[in-house]
Amino acid sequence: NTMIKKVLIGIVCGAAVLTVGILIGHFGITKGGSSGPSWVEDVAKDVDQSLIEKFLSEVDNIQIQENLRELTKVPHMATTAGDEQTVQFMLKRWQDAETGLDDAWREEYLVYLSFPDPKNPNKVTVVSPSDTVLHAIREKEKTYNPEEDDPAVVQPYAAYSPAGHPKGKLVYANQGKPSDYQVLNQTVDLRGTIAITRYGGAGRGAKAINAAPYGVIGVLVYTDPLDINDGLMSDINETYPHSWYLPPSGVERGSFNVQFGDMLTPYLAAKEDTYRIPAEDITGIPPIPIQPIGFEDAYILICALDGENAPQDWQGAFNCTYKYGGPGFKPTSAFNGRYSSARQKSPINCTEILLLHISEAVQVKNSSNVMGIIRGSVEPDRYVIYGNHRDSWVHGAIDPSSGTSVMLELTRVLGRMVKQGQWRPRRSIIFGSWGAEEFGLIGSAEYTEQYFAKLSERTVAYINVDIAVFANATLSASGMPSVQNIIFTAAKQVDAPGLVSTSVYDNWIKYSNRTSPAHGVIPRIGYLTGAGSDYAAFAHYLGITSMDISYTYDRSKTNARIYPAYHTAYDTFNYASKFIDPGFLSHQAIARTAGNVLIQLADSLVLPLNCSDYAETLEDYLKTAVSLYEEKLESRKISMGKNRGAGDATIPLKVRAINDQLMLLDRAFLDPLAFPDKYAYRHVIWASSSAGQPTFPGLADAFANADLSGQSSDWNKVHYHLSVASQAIEGAAQTLRVTAEIL
Amino acid sequence: NTMIKKVLIGIVCGAAVLTVGILIGHFGITKGGSSGPSWVEDVAKDVDQSLIEKFLSEVDNIQIQENLRELTKVPHMATTAGDEQTVQFMLKRWQDAETGLDDAWREEYLVYLSFPDPKNPNKVTVVSPSDTVLHAIREKEKTYNPEEDDPAVVQPYAAYSPAGHPKGKLVYANQGKPSDYQVLNQTVDLRGTIAITRYGGAGRGAKAINAAPYGVIGVLVYTDPLDINDGLMSDINETYPHSWYLPPSGVERGSFNVQFGDMLTPYLAAKEDTYRIPAEDITGIPPIPIQPIGFEDAYILICALDGENAPQDWQGAFNCTYKYGGPGFKPTSAFNGRYSSARQKSPINCTEILLLHISEAVQVKNSSNVMGIIRGSVEPDRYVIYGNHRDSWVHGAIDPSSGTSVMLELTRVLGRMVKQGQWRPRRSIIFGSWGAEEFGLIGSAEYTEQYFAKLSERTVAYINVDIAVFANATLSASGMPSVQNIIFTAAKQVDAPGLVSTSVYDNWIKYSNRTSPAHGVIPRIGYLTGAGSDYAAFAHYLGITSMDISYTYDRSKTNARIYPAYHTAYDTFNYASKFIDPGFLSHQAIARTAGNVLIQLADSLVLPLNCSDYAETLEDYLKTAVSLYEEKLESRKISMGKNRGAGDATIPLKVRAINDQLMLLDRAFLDPLAFPDKYAYRHVIWASSSAGQPTFPGLADAFANADLSGQSSDWNKVHYHLSVASQAIEGAAQTLRVTAEIL
Repeated sequence: NTMIKKVLIGIVCGAAVLTVGILIGHFGITKGGSSGPSWVEDVAKDVDQSLIEKFLSEVDNIQIQENLRELTKVPHMATTAGDEQTVQFMLKRWQDAETGLDDAWREEYLVYLSFPDPKNPNKVTVVSPSDTVLHAIREKEKTYNPEEDDPAVVQPYAAYSPAGHPKGKLVYANQGKPSDYQVLNQTVDLRGTIAITRYGGAGRGAKAINAAPYGVIGVLVYTDPLDINDGLMSDINETYPHSWYLPPSGVERGSFNVQFGDMLTPYLAAKEDTYRIPAEDITGIPPIPIQPIGFEDAYILICALDGENAPQDWQGAFNCTYKYGGPGFKPTSAFNGRYSSARQKSPINCTEILLLHISEAVQVKNSSNVMGIIRGSVEPDRYVIYGNHRDSWVHGAIDPSSGTSVMLELTRVLGRMVKQGQWRPRRSIIFGSWGAEEFGLIGSAEYTEQYFAKLSERTVAYINVDIAVFANATLSASGMPSVQNIIFTAAKQVDAPGLVSTSVYDNWIKYSNRTSPAHGVIPRIGYLTGAGSDYAAFAHYLGITSMDISYTYDRSKTNARIYPAYHTAYDTFNYASKFIDPGFLSHQAIARTAGNVLIQLADSLVLPLNCSDYAETLEDYLKTAVSLYEEKLESRKISMGKNRGAGDATIPLKVRAINDQLMLLDRAFLDPLAFPDKYAYRHVIWASSSAGQPTFPGLADAFANADLSGQSSDWNKVHYHLSVASQAIEGAAQTLRVTAEIL
Repeated sequence: NTMIKKVLIGIVCGAAVLTVGILIGHFGITKGGSSGPSWVEDVAKDVDQSLIEKFLSEVDNIQIQENLRELTKVPHMATTAGDEQTVQFMLKRWQDAETGLDDAWREEYLVYLSFPDPKNPNKVTVVSPSDTVLHAIREKEKTYNPEEDDPAVVQPYAAYSPAGHPKGKLVYANQGKPSDYQVLNQTVDLRGTIAITRYGGAGRGAKAINAAPYGVIGVLVYTDPLDINDGLMSDINETYPHSWYLPPSGVERGSFNVQFGDMLTPYLAAKEDTYRIPAEDITGIPPIPIQPIGFEDAYILICALDGENAPQDWQGAFNCTYKYGGPGFKPTSAFNGRYSSARQKSPINCTEILLLHISEAVQVKNSSNVMGIIRGSVEPDRYVIYGNHRDSWVHGAIDPSSGTSVMLELTRVLGRMVKQGQWRPRRSIIFGSWGAEEFGLIGSAEYTEQYFAKLSERTVAYINVDIAVFANATLSASGMPSVQNIIFTAAKQVDAPGLVSTSVYDNWIKYSNRTSPAHGVIPRIGYLTGAGSDYAAFAHYLGITSMDISYTYDRSKTNARIYPAYHTAYDTFNYASKFIDPGFLSHQAIARTAGNVLIQLADSLVLPLNCSDYAETLEDYLKTAVSLYEEKLESRKISMGKNRGAGDATIPLKVRAINDQLMLLDRAFLDPLAFPDKYAYRHVIWASSSAGQPTFPGLADAFANADLSGQSSDWNKVHYHLSVASQAIEGAAQTLRVTAEIL
């Protein structure tokens, strides 16, 4: 009585045959008949465990530390001189005669970026009615070490904010979610106001996009110490440089666009001649000016606000009650005290006002990916891709240079084995050092657009290691369920940093686990349902099996939403080596784990992708969907399905055939028309969803929408997404059947 | 200085390496080392020429004749009892123990069809103002042989016409093209009129869709003797049963929808639970009633029309001057004479009027595909698909049963070889007997939707033989340029019907040829740019290399737009065996040629698809685009491109890799977002186009549109399509590069 259940069983059956029968059933024959042509032996070669051991032993923590030191010498924001220095460094390393790759080169795209004007910096000021400046928000972060004072440190700003000079009274809008503005609007007339919001809860750009319909004319955003510093605020003894916590003047920079990829060239690679849409047609960027500030200033502004007390879940760590705003400040606020013995109560003329002066501008600039390859010996036309972005907001020691340092150590060890003739992978390995990720995953997205067909047809998997080490407690991994097994295998072979006789896997399972029907208690891997790093274009647009790997927090010790120096001037080599990973042992563990995954994907005779783990997740999705939706759907005569037959798979004749099926499994879930409003989201299982349910995203969103509106056209969309998901899953199951029997 | 030229050269180079180097460079080794495991020999096996000869000698013209006799016993319109009889017949033949296939089964879809009501047939009458019937258009075709009188012969009708009873004055609108109505509207007020149009020049449904904006309320369509009978009109001695020409009462039935596939389930297989769009959301169907009639009646109506003389190119073969219509008939027309001694000149009350009584209705019905397979020995997961529809409008001897008879003869000969253990193809062969093609390619389209991922990943090529024999003069073939070579090879091995020592190829080149830079004078093959038969979903939606093969006319002997009995009650076994192919030798030649193509695609070690022929066509496209568009585009600062590098290909390691590249070449040209208004058209090279230029269809249409409107937003679309074509071609070229060197 369920939609897809039989098909799920089909997937499981297929996978069982796949992972068991091949080597025995097929290459048993080869090894018996020993005198075959030499290429037969190459073709039949599998992962060499002694090579894995050699690789693991050669990955060196000090090398990673020195890579990081070199990469973080100067700020390297996309397309700046510092970025070009890192391009040259990557090329030099990958073209090295002794430890380089087979080939390395750069690829350029002309992409749409947004920068502040150094001669006319963004400013935020509290002014009197006569424009006397009563308080100016800090334009640069406070300096504790010389590198933070580098002239190339970009002023904190919100990329893709429009320029403008809105002037209005301040209100506090919590996290800037739609519901926050809705609640606030019930008490305060938001027209002409400027909203201050805290990071979290909604995407950066969404805080402004959600505000504009209420007549808000400008937005500030800051990081509340509650969300990042476990409440700590003082740089006298609590925050960096005394700990990993964010200093009061630290500001999270970021890209405030909603979509990813170059916004002027959707679905097209941003080459010189490429058609560009008119800039006014861009969607998903802030319609009103927005600026990020530090909590030092946010504290002054928020604690001066007038108006009703905000709800309990709007309160942060400041030692005052967060209020909605009058709009504007209390009559007793410090600003008023400075000028207002003659202060009147008239709200328009006499209350101090917040002025945003945003002068940043968009530019089309040349951004580079650096590409490197190791050619495969047996299947050069099958690719395992390993990537990370290279651009940072400032020095970017953790984001992204921790990942780049790890990648460079991988390529050093593997490149030397290749150059010395000790090894050549079965499949080709492509390394990508992506440009302009911070502005919206641009380098990787343009790459997938330019090489769409080839990458779709040939790519076995994509491994992303962006921030390699958020913290040094435990492994963290997200990906398609089919990669769970290979990450486990790799993690079991790597020692946990700083622990005796404990593997990365054994340590991981203590921090995060779940019970699987098939495997019992295992570490929990996450899903790639968003677009948080460069895996997005591979997973969602190309439908390539992808994963994202890092070392991360002990959540019993901190509630920080991310490592506190994220996107600030404090994300430096000093910060990383003192507070994130002293000794670089977690970096080393990530290099070993991710490298091990890479080698196994590149060298395995049969790809170590496990379809039955995929089926387990789909079955969970299905159970969730049935329990959440079936009753209401049946009341509307929409059936969640009849039993559709699913045949057995038979033992295949060729490893290549199996590998192709495994490789293309995720591609089979693509539907380029299923989500017309979600740019480049094509994967029916992993597309982003606002419903927050662990089930089919299109179905979940459509159901939430229909349940709210009750309109029959919205229920039609539920039925449509049910059919889309059902057809995609059946289609994927069919691709796992080897013979032509069931067509 | 041209967009894609370098890339084209890349394709040529790749192809040269591919087709030459493989067997020598690679399987030379295999054959040297003779004592390898047995599967190595299987893997290296190529097409067996003696098997081709055996196949050609066993294809029997009398077997085809008897297949046709059986298939045409009763009318077999989709989903009728006659259709079910053919399903049973196909299953019996394909499940036969001695000459059947490995397996055969049916697959059902619930699809949206349109039928007249036998109890309330469509009527067209000329009536007086008081509704006296002055003339009734014939409801059934005249009977010359008993089979034409079968009660299952469906009344002539326009499938998907809305029901309705429009009443208005008649006008003549030539072929019902947009330009025809535009011209006519300059002279006649079309509001409230009924237009009579002739077949040709515009699609069936378009004749009504184009009319409605002018206020036309109903449309008639007929076949002018000029267009189908080389002017002949008399059934006393000129038309069937005296010749192949259409009798005066013959009516071409047809589907009047514009899109293909089941219209309620776009992009989804039409299964029971599938979401269906509301019928009112269907686009591309006539908004006003439309009915086809015979030229016997059209002659009476058109020659009675009043008004100005129509232009010269609107004139047909009737012995009167075709006029626009008053609107309505001449005062001196026969209708008026019958009742109008008291006739007044007042146009509303007193002129005889045409009444359409259209009562047909749409129904969701169960339509079957019959599927059969021969499993491949070495690559069972690679498919060559051979198909034709099974449903007809009436007896359908030529359309489609000539093709089905040929398919059954192929499966008999190949099936017996398999059953006797003499042969098993390297790759799997899938035979498809599609249902409900006449209503819009529905069976094949639903099949491609249901199995989208699997077919995309595994299908090597699709061979369509619908109408096998239009006439017995010469071979005709259309397809992707990459199949040209294999059709030539096959045609050279088959004797031309009725000719001594002349191959099908030698005969063909006399009727239709062109000069190729690479090959000199060769037969001309057409392009599959439309949706005329079941290749459409394979070519346009899946991007599978496809071809369509038939025997056809000597164009020096007839101008008939199609064989005259097309879609009429006269398309019978008697007609086919007397006038189209007496002795069935052309059917035999098609069976031999298409079967030879099939075997070669299924058995070749290296797929015989030729990329350099593709490059030649693309180069022609490019030359055409440059000569037509470059000057105007450069004046608008849109560059047709810079030199983009294109690398060399190297000798590949594996045949499978090459074959996959060849197989997937067309898939690389797909862009599911390039043509948002063209349902299921995704192939950037072959999509339908209204510009009528032999070049990139999106570019050509956008250019024509921009050139007309002059609007900059339309020029933006030109630039967009230039980028889409450029990126698709570069993407396809990349897929032909074997190594990972150029990424």
